Amino acid sequence: MKHRTARRMRAALALTATSAALVGLVGLAALPASAATPDDVTEHGGATRNDGDMTEMLRESLVDGPAKNVILLIGDGMGDSEITVARNYAEGAGGRFAGIDALPLTGSYTTYAVNADGSVNYASESASTASGWSTGTKTVNGRLSVDVDLDPQATLLEIAKANGLKTGNVSTAEIQDATPGAEIAHISKRGCFGPVKTTADCSSESVEAGGLGSISEQLLNVRPDVTLGGGAATFEESAVAGPWAGKTLFEQASDRGYQRVDNAAELAAVTTADADQPLLGLFSLGNFPTRWVGPDATDIPDADSTKLPAPVACTENPERLETGLSLADLTDKAIDLLDNDNGFFLQVEGASIDKQDHAANACGQIGETVDLDEAVQVALEYAETKGDTLVVVTADHAHTSQIVGSAIPGLNTHLLTEEGAPMIVAYGTSAAGGSQQHTGAQVRIAGYGPGAANVVGLTDQTDLFFTSANTLGLNQDLASLSAAATLAAPTEVLPGATYTVTASGLNADWQVRGSDDLGQQDVLRGTASFQVTAPAEPGTQTVTLTGAQTGVVLTADVSVSAAAPVDPAPTASATPPAAAAGSGSGSSSTGSLATTGTSVPFALGGIALALVAGGAYLVIRRHRRGHALSHN
Amino acid sequence: MKHRTARRMRAALALTATSAALVGLVGLAALPASAATPDDVTEHGGATRNDGDMTEMLRESLVDGPAKNVILLIGDGMGDSEITVARNYAEGAGGRFAGIDALPLTGSYTTYAVNADGSVNYASESASTASGWSTGTKTVNGRLSVDVDLDPQATLLEIAKANGLKTGNVSTAEIQDATPGAEIAHISKRGCFGPVKTTADCSSESVEAGGLGSISEQLLNVRPDVTLGGGAATFEESAVAGPWAGKTLFEQASDRGYQRVDNAAELAAVTTADADQPLLGLFSLGNFPTRWVGPDATDIPDADSTKLPAPVACTENPERLETGLSLADLTDKAIDLLDNDNGFFLQVEGASIDKQDHAANACGQIGETVDLDEAVQVALEYAETKGDTLVVVTADHAHTSQIVGSAIPGLNTHLLTEEGAPMIVAYGTSAAGGSQQHTGAQVRIAGYGPGAANVVGLTDQTDLFFTSANTLGLNQDLASLSAAATLAAPTEVLPGATYTVTASGLNADWQVRGSDDLGQQDVLRGTASFQVTAPAEPGTQTVTLTGAQTGVVLTADVSVSAAAPVDPAPTASATPPAAAAGSGSGSSSTGSLATTGTSVPFALGGIALALVAGGAYLVIRRHRRGHALSHN
Repeated sequence: MKHRTARRMRAALALTATSAALVGLVGLAALPASAATPDDVTEHGGATRNDGDMTEMLRESLVDGPAKNVILLIGDGMGDSEITVARNYAEGAGGRFAGIDALPLTGSYTTYAVNADGSVNYASESASTASGWSTGTKTVNGRLSVDVDLDPQATLLEIAKANGLKTGNVSTAEIQDATPGAEIAHISKRGCFGPVKTTADCSSESVEAGGLGSISEQLLNVRPDVTLGGGAATFEESAVAGPWAGKTLFEQASDRGYQRVDNAAELAAVTTADADQPLLGLFSLGNFPTRWVGPDATDIPDADSTKLPAPVACTENPERLETGLSLADLTDKAIDLLDNDNGFFLQVEGASIDKQDHAANACGQIGETVDLDEAVQVALEYAETKGDTLVVVTADHAHTSQIVGSAIPGLNTHLLTEEGAPMIVAYGTSAAGGSQQHTGAQVRIAGYGPGAANVVGLTDQTDLFFTSANTLGLNQDLASLSAAATLAAPTEVLPGATYTVTASGLNADWQVRGSDDLGQQDVLRGTASFQVTAPAEPGTQTVTLTGAQTGVVLTADVSVSAAAPVDPAPTASATPPAAAAGSGSGSSSTGSLATTGTSVPFALGGIALALVAGGAYLVIRRHRRGHALSHN
Repeated sequence: MKHRTARRMRAALALTATSAALVGLVGLAALPASAATPDDVTEHGGATRNDGDMTEMLRESLVDGPAKNVILLIGDGMGDSEITVARNYAEGAGGRFAGIDALPLTGSYTTYAVNADGSVNYASESASTASGWSTGTKTVNGRLSVDVDLDPQATLLEIAKANGLKTGNVSTAEIQDATPGAEIAHISKRGCFGPVKTTADCSSESVEAGGLGSISEQLLNVRPDVTLGGGAATFEESAVAGPWAGKTLFEQASDRGYQRVDNAAELAAVTTADADQPLLGLFSLGNFPTRWVGPDATDIPDADSTKLPAPVACTENPERLETGLSLADLTDKAIDLLDNDNGFFLQVEGASIDKQDHAANACGQIGETVDLDEAVQVALEYAETKGDTLVVVTADHAHTSQIVGSAIPGLNTHLLTEEGAPMIVAYGTSAAGGSQQHTGAQVRIAGYGPGAANVVGLTDQTDLFFTSANTLGLNQDLASLSAAATLAAPTEVLPGATYTVTASGLNADWQVRGSDDLGQQDVLRGTASFQVTAPAEPGTQTVTLTGAQTGVVLTADVSVSAAAPVDPAPTASATPPAAAAGSGSGSSSTGSLATTGTSVPFALGGIALALVAGGAYLVIRRHRRGHALSHN
């Protein structure tokens, strides 16, 4: 295992060197230096971690918001026990993770769920918990970002996007899995990854039923700038209904402008990811293979510790994805692509701490924690450079693994740690072959940067939603963010002409539906255009556009007249028609997030032209009269 | 259970009222107000705990040392899981302990032990862990405040006392148990409570072998101002050797000036506890009975949750000690008695969280956590009033209990919580009938007051020693605290006369031994006096006193002459003899804490007189030439 240790040491040295170079350059206090591993923890004071009085250091670490960026790093199932198991193994009991343990501000948060009847559920899981911090609303186990009444709740990623920030979603799990899924989908069952399962298990939410569709289809609608993870298998499923019926989700993604990559070289070649060409990199059919493998946990007869197998070390998993696709690599790339003047929100999940804990696989679980730690190091390095980024590291819920002194009646793994000591990791919440259970203990939350003070003490998982949204200064009322949308249309067109109408300022709508047979467009940067054909007879043509998410309605009355100026039909052009008086009316729907209905792909080049042309068009601005979604 | 809830609510209201009255009166920021329990945790934002942005509140909570007082409250075995189990049960998942959860600054600390060969041990227990924060030195499981080489390590309580602070030690366990024991004893086996066990299991450390003696005997030597807990049974044992051989430890305590109380009325009547009359209140033969009782944990066939018994609530334990002897009551009384101009150090342990966790007794464990919470409320109320007191709440190690969603193959308890929801508390680290195991997870540490910033982030248990000692501004070099001791003796006495010699400034010695047949005295406030009989023939009499703990040696040469002034022999008197030239020499031993050897009781009244008389005596001051104990 020497090479791994050496590699981790090199990484730590590199981080230290970078940090040292940056000290003094940024407004935010430098991260506390990691104390050197003590030479002898048996000496008086030899095991301490503080380096003198930390009051001033802590004072300097308290930075008021706003933050420009937020990076949330989630260790799925990474309770305090899992952190300690991994630290003991990889860094030694007296050691320190260079990422996870470096954040200066720490607290605990509660992770309970609620039941459908509104009562509390002390044993939550990844869907209800991820929904908690993604939306600020407690929900029922198994649900993603819908509340106890199944009403969709806006997520941090969606709100960030609606406020003009770039967004990213990274996981070592299938990207449809609960943690990444909660940021981009609203559905009653977390297992409805694609059209197949959704038709079977979430039928009323399927596209064919007029619902929001499967988690994958919702992801394509939300259109984060960067999406990296596993879960390619589901994208080979075909849509059942809608404009892409019969086409695979990958084909749909390409149709809608996504850049697709599926290996490290392709990822490395990507230089831009934005609304026009969001990045979709799915590098495994299912979840990522783990970093490490090791011995199976075993039932020890009579829990007799003398019958434990000899302690052994973990080993590298030969199935691990190629170099360049570690969670740290993906985090690094995501940050590179998201960094922009308007800020970004990025969620990164180390997913298989949980999955390997369920499987009573200590080495799997530990390796994934080490993997997350390296991703945290990347995030902290960026945050320390910039001084304007809140980094939060936490878990969704606690888990089963326990460090014990002698074999338990359940499953035991006997590991030889990096510092050469034996450690028993015990799994006692399910019989051999079953899935070990989550546990309901409060879990650690740690932060660095503007607003990080809000993680200290006892908070709830739902506080993290507000901590993040507030330090970013986000307007959480999505409906209001589309309320000032405008519709640009010519005031007068020739009968039978084709002309362009362009909606702008639809900041909280990912799609917009046109009246009649206009279909649906993706809204990019708040904007979408439709080509409209005027009727053959003179009169008034009313064009109505409806935001798919907020329900805001934009209406324009266009005069159809043989006396109209020559229209640039059949395609939009940079030559504006002469402006003339037009009339418009606006209205808005009320209720929860509207469904996406049908949708048609749009030629992106046409939008740009239409926008230039729109400068001389009549701009009809309508304020919403109701609140489709209220977020406070 | 309504009355309990009502009682807890009244207590909370009382604390709130007090807090409100105090805001603005003290330099230290007020404790954060507890958010009201949300009406509906299913609403958006309904489950949050923060009340807006907490950055400024946290900033105000960062108070530089020094602190005048330190109160450490230890929940034995109170890991994050145990806190959550108890909070869920007693306050609701979205509730908040008014004490435990109110401390503004939080972190985690590691609790590992070391083995005798210096390697690490990931699964520690209460003796090694209590030694960790008591001494700043890691040790081997089962040992109390000796290091890996069995060398005694000075404790926070001892160091505080040597620095002139008052000291207290409170526990719901037998007072000889690991957590309270670590502050007042240095011994290789935590079980050596009294002479009987010590003769059998710790023979080389027994008084008869010239050792420090049993934990109880060491307690009597250290002489904290206030000692309250259980463990009276051991004090009925008789000393095997030394001046109290054949006398019970209770008789010894009385002989040495201790005030003994054994019920609430007697405790209430105590108005003073100090070096002259330290308070020893042992209210149960063994550990205190628990506050609550409840159903036994049971093995559920096939871990089939449908076979779980119906959930039930905990009930009051009819065996609980009488009113006035709760941990909160004892904490309150201890603070009252310790509050003084020089400050104090007080340790309070809620011991049976651990003991009931071992016994897989969920209600027992929960009730003890609630009990500790009320003690924390008392400490915080005092600290908030004074503004000069560091309060730290933490655990010694994590423990076994887990909150799960379905029955485990081990032991399960199905509880109906205060908010009317079912909760499964699982115990899976030992078979039915066995002792459930400690676990090695890092545990929560929380602080309030000057120096509390040092608990935030990741620390080690041994950091707590330095956090406490440093914020109190304690000189940790005990030997240096006795190095300026002086010995007052007459310069010249008549042959055969009885005269008094008085040592002062023996701040880090609890006993002092006289040369020849002078025996041993308790050192009170750094001072002890001996009655010396001059030889019948003229000449020079050399009197040598040796500090029992630091080994400092004080020597006086007294001239024995028929021409000496009339001596006030045979008893000390307020009339000083005429001063004359004398000579003295000093030396010091080196090495570890010296043993107490034999000791004789001393008439306390005599000391006072001798001290008055000492003013005109020759004062011989000797600086130490070596370091018997070095603490840095």
